[in-house]
Amino acid sequence: MADPRRARTGVSPGDVAREKPFDATRQASRDVIVVGGGVVGLAVAWRAARAGLSVAVVDPAPGSGASHASAGMLAPVSEVTYTEEPLLRLGLASLAAWPAFRAELEDESGASLDHRADGTLEVAHSADDMAYFDELGAFERTLGLPVERLTGRECRALEPMLAPSVRGGLLASGDAWVNPRRVVRALLAALGRAGGELVPDRAAGIVPLDAGGLAVRLGSGGEARAGQVVVAAGSWSPSLLPGLPVRPVKGQILRLRGPEGFLTRCVRGLVHGSPAYLVPRGDGEITLGATVEELGFDGRVTAGGVYELLRDARELVPGITELELAETTVGFRPGTPDNLPLIGPAGPPGVLAATGHHRSGVLLAPVTAEAVVAFLTGGEVPQVVKSCDPGRFGG
Amino acid sequence: MADPRRARTGVSPGDVAREKPFDATRQASRDVIVVGGGVVGLAVAWRAARAGLSVAVVDPAPGSGASHASAGMLAPVSEVTYTEEPLLRLGLASLAAWPAFRAELEDESGASLDHRADGTLEVAHSADDMAYFDELGAFERTLGLPVERLTGRECRALEPMLAPSVRGGLLASGDAWVNPRRVVRALLAALGRAGGELVPDRAAGIVPLDAGGLAVRLGSGGEARAGQVVVAAGSWSPSLLPGLPVRPVKGQILRLRGPEGFLTRCVRGLVHGSPAYLVPRGDGEITLGATVEELGFDGRVTAGGVYELLRDARELVPGITELELAETTVGFRPGTPDNLPLIGPAGPPGVLAATGHHRSGVLLAPVTAEAVVAFLTGGEVPQVVKSCDPGRFGG
Repeated sequence: MADPRRARTGVSPGDVAREKPFDATRQASRDVIVVGGGVVGLAVAWRAARAGLSVAVVDPAPGSGASHASAGMLAPVSEVTYTEEPLLRLGLASLAAWPAFRAELEDESGASLDHRADGTLEVAHSADDMAYFDELGAFERTLGLPVERLTGRECRALEPMLAPSVRGGLLASGDAWVNPRRVVRALLAALGRAGGELVPDRAAGIVPLDAGGLAVRLGSGGEARAGQVVVAAGSWSPSLLPGLPVRPVKGQILRLRGPEGFLTRCVRGLVHGSPAYLVPRGDGEITLGATVEELGFDGRVTAGGVYELLRDARELVPGITELELAETTVGFRPGTPDNLPLIGPAGPPGVLAATGHHRSGVLLAPVTAEAVVAFLTGGEVPQVVKSCDPGRFGG
Repeated sequence: MADPRRARTGVSPGDVAREKPFDATRQASRDVIVVGGGVVGLAVAWRAARAGLSVAVVDPAPGSGASHASAGMLAPVSEVTYTEEPLLRLGLASLAAWPAFRAELEDESGASLDHRADGTLEVAHSADDMAYFDELGAFERTLGLPVERLTGRECRALEPMLAPSVRGGLLASGDAWVNPRRVVRALLAALGRAGGELVPDRAAGIVPLDAGGLAVRLGSGGEARAGQVVVAAGSWSPSLLPGLPVRPVKGQILRLRGPEGFLTRCVRGLVHGSPAYLVPRGDGEITLGATVEELGFDGRVTAGGVYELLRDARELVPGITELELAETTVGFRPGTPDNLPLIGPAGPPGVLAATGHHRSGVLLAPVTAEAVVAFLTGGEVPQVVKSCDPGRFGG
């Protein structure tokens, strides 16, 4: 568990590369190189390839960063972010873009994302918790999101595994989620079909060329050239764009395995003041998250992190103690000072950032990809992305 | 974590086999085949080889069973067993044999067992717990084991990481422990040096031969022949000796990793009625155990098992929350109806059992090996092992 970024990669870098034996140094300059093969980078690369650009993604192990840890919820209104208006508008715009994004991705990849739209049940333990959720529900209704207030009994009728102590909750029946590891696999396949390439190497630097264009220096010693470069390397982005205000926000997250139907909805709760969630998958997996720790790149799964996750989840759903603890993972959310991502020109001319998506990379992938392709092709950048200018902090 | 027996094997079966390319079917009959390469089986094989017998061990993955999970405590007087007199006598006999066993093993293997003799601190939370420990301490003193009663303050002076709630305890200053994974490695090396061989295959059955002697059928299809066969396959022994009263007693056990010196002694406590222990190693690892579950061969690490271990350990040593949770393991103690092992003739003539060691395989390895070699060579079997006759349950 020492190096979670490199461990347990669900995706073989060969998935695309095997089809196209690739010699980075041999290649002529491409239109675009995307550094980083997480959900955001791959979505950008896929949409760019579909827009007719020649594209390569540079990543030694696609999908092994934050995307590997992510729970994949497509719910822009959460306890954490609902008071942050620009982020909320961005999330709602991307949520609206998800159905078409998903349909096209599943169609072109031939893969399922394990998309489920069975709703979120937000549950309260105390009267204070319920008051909080009442306020949240009122806000959600002003946004036109369908939210229903339920008693504890009604909550348990929907999800019989809920604790008897649950007092009540909110049902957001339309809430959806995907399996981010499947999204990565689908994006790799769709990228390959769209003519995109994968360079399974580490990006060591970006160098402007005298003749115009950019070279991405590779860890193996070679380089790859392109007219434009998109940095979508999550928490590692500042290694390529020094000074970029992105920091790793450590999260520990567990995968439990149980009988299918143990939970049918996404269950969220506030327990001891910390948000906890349980996200069920089609195969009986339940993703249980997540700690939020400001510890830099501390890749350790800790006794305390796992203990607190299990303790809080037990309070919501006592029966989880019988489930298999199948996996413990550490991920690093790319955080920014205002929790908004960085999307747009950054660093040397021709370089774009598409990073800093914090807790929301999967949700924000469609709108980010649309915006980056607009930047790349001189198209119209969606208004809602203007708040994400990487230069907004000055300096 | 689905198949803990085969996962994370600390020892490569090649450690011995590489030196001696082995064709099981080519070989002439050996004196002894030992089925099972855990600490008990390897100790038997090593001592048999040192006694001049030709020996092979059959195991597809030596050291990957209960030995891989074990904490390696050499403390025959524990909460669980101290009222069981025959087992206690056996444990004390084996404890007395450990220093010579260890010296010879380290000498012949050139490997360290990470043997530590820094004592056990048994700590009590409540007045009831302390009363229990007072009784235990009195009993230990009647056995001549040096045990000292300490106040809570004295306990914390010795181990500053102990919880403020600890009321007092017992210090058994002579208690020792080893790293069972190192014991396996050392035994494999010593066995190789003594001329023993490893057959990295699964034993599928034992067949008496018309011409005398026995054949061990191998999973790969071949067979290996010997005059005598020792079944030391732990919880899997009944697959070779049907009806043998051995059952798997599931244990979940954690490995934490922290700064060296976090704990210096083995710390044991009764928490919520269940015994918990923390065993520090020289490299900063702390083994935290263990659940006791009658669930057959259920190899799942469960959310509840890990939760309870962490919860109980936190009550003894709150600071463990900061440590890395480096490993979760499931092992199967080979349990018997009376908690005593099965050592001696069992099944067809020429077959011996050396199994059923439950929680005490590492402690009991020296006396078991001595007894089995006596059975194999017609020597004098130690009196204390007479209570371990595999036929004692009749049938």
